Amino acid sequence: MITVGVLGATGAVGQRFVQLLADHPWFDLGVLTASERSAGKKYRDAVNWRLDVPFPEGAGEIVVSPTTAAAVKDCDIVFSALPADVAGKTELEVAAAGVGVCSNASSHRMDPDVPLVIPEVNADHLGLIDVQHDRGRDGFIVTNPNCSTIMLTLALAPLQPLGFSGVQVATMQAISGAGFQGIAGMEIFDNVVPFIKNEEEKMETEPRKIMGTFDGAAVEPASFSVSACCNRVPVIDGHTLSVWLDMDRSLEEIRRAFEEYVAPFSGLPTQPAKSVEYLKQPDRPQPRLDRNRGNGMTVSVGRLREGPRFTALGHNTIRGAAGASVLNAELIYKEKYL
Amino acid sequence: MITVGVLGATGAVGQRFVQLLADHPWFDLGVLTASERSAGKKYRDAVNWRLDVPFPEGAGEIVVSPTTAAAVKDCDIVFSALPADVAGKTELEVAAAGVGVCSNASSHRMDPDVPLVIPEVNADHLGLIDVQHDRGRDGFIVTNPNCSTIMLTLALAPLQPLGFSGVQVATMQAISGAGFQGIAGMEIFDNVVPFIKNEEEKMETEPRKIMGTFDGAAVEPASFSVSACCNRVPVIDGHTLSVWLDMDRSLEEIRRAFEEYVAPFSGLPTQPAKSVEYLKQPDRPQPRLDRNRGNGMTVSVGRLREGPRFTALGHNTIRGAAGASVLNAELIYKEKYL
Amino acid sequence: MITVGVLGATGAVGQRFVQLLADHPWFDLGVLTASERSAGKKYRDAVNWRLDVPFPEGAGEIVVSPTTAAAVKDCDIVFSALPADVAGKTELEVAAAGVGVCSNASSHRMDPDVPLVIPEVNADHLGLIDVQHDRGRDGFIVTNPNCSTIMLTLALAPLQPLGFSGVQVATMQAISGAGFQGIAGMEIFDNVVPFIKNEEEKMETEPRKIMGTFDGAAVEPASFSVSACCNRVPVIDGHTLSVWLDMDRSLEEIRRAFEEYVAPFSGLPTQPAKSVEYLKQPDRPQPRLDRNRGNGMTVSVGRLREGPRFTALGHNTIRGAAGASVLNAELIYKEKYL
Amino acid sequence: MITVGVLGATGAVGQRFVQLLADHPWFDLGVLTASERSAGKKYRDAVNWRLDVPFPEGAGEIVVSPTTAAAVKDCDIVFSALPADVAGKTELEVAAAGVGVCSNASSHRMDPDVPLVIPEVNADHLGLIDVQHDRGRDGFIVTNPNCSTIMLTLALAPLQPLGFSGVQVATMQAISGAGFQGIAGMEIFDNVVPFIKNEEEKMETEPRKIMGTFDGAAVEPASFSVSACCNRVPVIDGHTLSVWLDMDRSLEEIRRAFEEYVAPFSGLPTQPAKSVEYLKQPDRPQPRLDRNRGNGMTVSVGRLREGPRFTALGHNTIRGAAGASVLNAELIYKEKYL
Repeated sequence: MITVGVLGATGAVGQRFVQLLADHPWFDLGVLTASERSAGKKYRDAVNWRLDVPFPEGAGEIVVSPTTAAAVKDCDIVFSALPADVAGKTELEVAAAGVGVCSNASSHRMDPDVPLVIPEVNADHLGLIDVQHDRGRDGFIVTNPNCSTIMLTLALAPLQPLGFSGVQVATMQAISGAGFQGIAGMEIFDNVVPFIKNEEEKMETEPRKIMGTFDGAAVEPASFSVSACCNRVPVIDGHTLSVWLDMDRSLEEIRRAFEEYVAPFSGLPTQPAKSVEYLKQPDRPQPRLDRNRGNGMTVSVGRLREGPRFTALGHNTIRGAAGASVLNAELIYKEKYL
Repeated sequence: MITVGVLGATGAVGQRFVQLLADHPWFDLGVLTASERSAGKKYRDAVNWRLDVPFPEGAGEIVVSPTTAAAVKDCDIVFSALPADVAGKTELEVAAAGVGVCSNASSHRMDPDVPLVIPEVNADHLGLIDVQHDRGRDGFIVTNPNCSTIMLTLALAPLQPLGFSGVQVATMQAISGAGFQGIAGMEIFDNVVPFIKNEEEKMETEPRKIMGTFDGAAVEPASFSVSACCNRVPVIDGHTLSVWLDMDRSLEEIRRAFEEYVAPFSGLPTQPAKSVEYLKQPDRPQPRLDRNRGNGMTVSVGRLREGPRFTALGHNTIRGAAGASVLNAELIYKEKYL
Repeated sequence: MITVGVLGATGAVGQRFVQLLADHPWFDLGVLTASERSAGKKYRDAVNWRLDVPFPEGAGEIVVSPTTAAAVKDCDIVFSALPADVAGKTELEVAAAGVGVCSNASSHRMDPDVPLVIPEVNADHLGLIDVQHDRGRDGFIVTNPNCSTIMLTLALAPLQPLGFSGVQVATMQAISGAGFQGIAGMEIFDNVVPFIKNEEEKMETEPRKIMGTFDGAAVEPASFSVSACCNRVPVIDGHTLSVWLDMDRSLEEIRRAFEEYVAPFSGLPTQPAKSVEYLKQPDRPQPRLDRNRGNGMTVSVGRLREGPRFTALGHNTIRGAAGASVLNAELIYKEKYL
Repeated sequence: MITVGVLGATGAVGQRFVQLLADHPWFDLGVLTASERSAGKKYRDAVNWRLDVPFPEGAGEIVVSPTTAAAVKDCDIVFSALPADVAGKTELEVAAAGVGVCSNASSHRMDPDVPLVIPEVNADHLGLIDVQHDRGRDGFIVTNPNCSTIMLTLALAPLQPLGFSGVQVATMQAISGAGFQGIAGMEIFDNVVPFIKNEEEKMETEPRKIMGTFDGAAVEPASFSVSACCNRVPVIDGHTLSVWLDMDRSLEEIRRAFEEYVAPFSGLPTQPAKSVEYLKQPDRPQPRLDRNRGNGMTVSVGRLREGPRFTALGHNTIRGAAGASVLNAELIYKEKYL
């Protein structure tokens, strides 16, 4: 068992981290940080638990620390659920203090020496950890992608061997992706908001880094292009994507690639039985019915038809955020980067 | 004033017809038909009024007739809100009886001699009425497109002079489009359903007929292709579309085309001030805020950006159904086809 | 025509005021105030218009003033949509400057010399305006009740002659009552929140003042008691109430009282045809279908049955807020208190 | 292990039964019945699985039988999720065939010799099974109450020793209570429906039978009265109740009764740690956050205040339906009624 912590443990993603780490077989949850206002309180008193799963009683006894490098210096790995404006500086300080940071924040995702990892897709990019060490960083930073990027990129993973040159994707994203206070009821109720700040930019750059080639020193982005239309819809959890591909393969080849896909590793506790699951019913996947597949870690695909086009779906705060970071940490631990 | 009727006046679209016709300046609402079960009752007793606008008291006194050609034979125009399985035969009988039928049903939309009309786009296709007469039909059938087709096609109208070769569109469609009983609460609540029966097929064929060329005898479909992903979302009224175009024009040209667009006719009572309105705010159009523009007859567009791609939105049971038929009838009346 | 203004014109209630006043037959909308940040901008640029009715273009040209007594000193009446923490002081200053204030804020509702008015119920309480003048206030303050109080009290108005000693009421209140940002999507989506701050207290005191007796100097509260359970539900507009009464009257007497009720005045522009409307259908009133009766100014009642108990419903931001204040102002103007 | 079956296994409650029984430690799920149309198919092919928990793969292989007594004659217990119009006759036939029926249907709840049981409240009423045997029934019928009755009655269980003479309750009930197709999206979206057929009648009679006295031969109903206002709200799962009591006890006594309440039995697999849980936060319980307490078997109470009044909440298709029946069956098995 190694000791882990969570930076920003009281927000929407922070609570998911605590849920996933409370009974983790490899990781011992030791440190939870939050704002100065919460520091010194027991976690059970500091947090307004808003998830629809029971509060993890064990974690409730942890006394919350302020969000500083000093607070987490004895952890082996810390998970960052910090907002982007705070994450940039804090994560650097934590990594400088010799700690491994698995971050869900966007701040360092596009840094050349920071791996942007989905274990099923680009585990080899973890080699950038050595590049960071070589440049004098005691610890390291490893990031996971933006929530909608993860759904898209993982759905594309089975098709990468077939080749594609372009992706067009319209998203229908859940409100939990904006955090507990991120979107007012009056804004989203009986409504669609066809704009999510910076989201399309992330979807158009992150997949190319993730699917890029690591030569031991740097990542060369993949050459395909992505064009995204991001929409917020009145759904609690689960991002749904309508995806078109520019590729010259038959539907039969694509379907077989989805159905025969197997993750290139196994044995990680948070890993689902199927990372990508192809659903045959004509009206699936649907967020309310399919977001919890594989405990929220499976990306479901379906409705493959001429175009080629298909629908993809995943749980945005589990596979798309906290679960993504935890899976990265499990891979890091197993691959002995600590 | 001419006398009009509504076939299938108690359903979701039927009620919208009654709302729009109750105080119409040109049309006198004289006949309302429904199933045998309702025939003989006053409309106010036969209908379970479900719209969020007040019940039109005047129409409430009309005694409901059964849905037969005989019932409407004294009308100049009848509006059809019949379901497709009933509409096919009944509309033929009504037209054979010398009555003009303005239909929202899909049954005859693709008939070679039936015009599929959006007044702003292809008023000249009404010439097919003469073709119908030449072939021995006493009355005529004129159809309006499927609800999501109307939003797409009207949004494309300002761009037709600029030329485009392909369209990709992901829809987020309101539940009212399925009728009052069409979709269960448990199906759509906190959910997205990525499948609407026959909808993608309609969106991929109807716009080409509407934007096709009428040579006095037949319509040659336009050559562009459409690829659609249709989704149902938890919104009461208003279809939202994410649209990509294959075209080589600058964003500036496209924006100007949207902003300078003027409908090619004026003076119809149901016509909005702007048939297409370009919204500058970065997060618009949105269904709850924009569906009622122009009394539900305006299609709003916005979020134009590289691709080119943009967002379009309109009220699906007004501009996308009953209002579309009424506007067609107003054009027919004004153009003296009666 | 007299000149009126709106204090706090950019919020949820402020926008409703602007909507209702933009084309008012008696009132000329001259002044709109907002925070310092908005002052100096045209209203169309200062406001993020969030209502589902079209933006009133005329009001859009008004240059927004800061929220001060000086800004509105030339108005005859100003409407206050200020939050309670600001309203208390500002409304006193405006009234001291000789202006009549019709306020939707709670700050002064229970002041002994401030009338808390629903025109249909206690128009005579406007006599407190003279008491205010006698005590040296140049202008005056008149308040309307809390939104859920209005629905309850107006629904009780027809029954007041029959007598009742106690009221128990469970509310199901719409999210617009909390303002545009008042309740997060994650809080209310797929949820009920059984707590609204200070709401039960207001419902338990305000109706007794409104239905109290004014002797020319002060109001003696009515003697009945109210016990309220206030709940927030996922509805945009419209508060629904389940009401029990302690009274010894037959259902027939109560029904007749509802059906025969006529408002004790007429001729006010914002007044609906029926202030209280009894619906006979067994499953009404419902917020989506009935909130817009009488342009949002009618309170609907129904489901009367043994208990006696019944259901009441009204539009919370029209009859329950802005419309209530405007109706008060119309009564004040007609009764020559200006 | 004893063999059990489910009558009507493909509907909303039927699916919950299958979920709860698929891995039950005492019960071996052997028979699933459905309509003739589904008979002969594997359950995985016959059911349109609509729950947001994974499909139980083991049950998927069971071949569905038609809903007849013959089909379940080798079961020790069958659970009935039949609609009331079918349940009446079928359950009698199954019980006559020597099988124990645990029914969620309303058909036989008020039969004098059929126990209406909530294990925590009236386990002794199971003695009516012997009465049924004495009257010549080979098997037996045991029923659980209507969903909202269960929430109310279980919430009252801790207070029964304190005594109360009357209950007034307003419910806010989830849409899943009406079954998958029971309520259309257009009916309930952005809406409250203040009417649920027969629901108030059930709430006003069932609690009195459950809390009545069994003298070895018959049940004498409890003397308190219940007055209910039942409302449907846009929530997926979880019924919320605003409750007033006629009782002369201090809030402190009532709170202590809630907090110190312990179920009068233990050791049943489906039994939650706390059957009734008192929540201290001022804005709880809430359906989205609290319905899954105790795996959906806990009734949460809170907001206790003068009246006395309080809020209660429970999961309507688990504690309020399938879970209630399974808990009854566990008690029957443990108490050796088989």
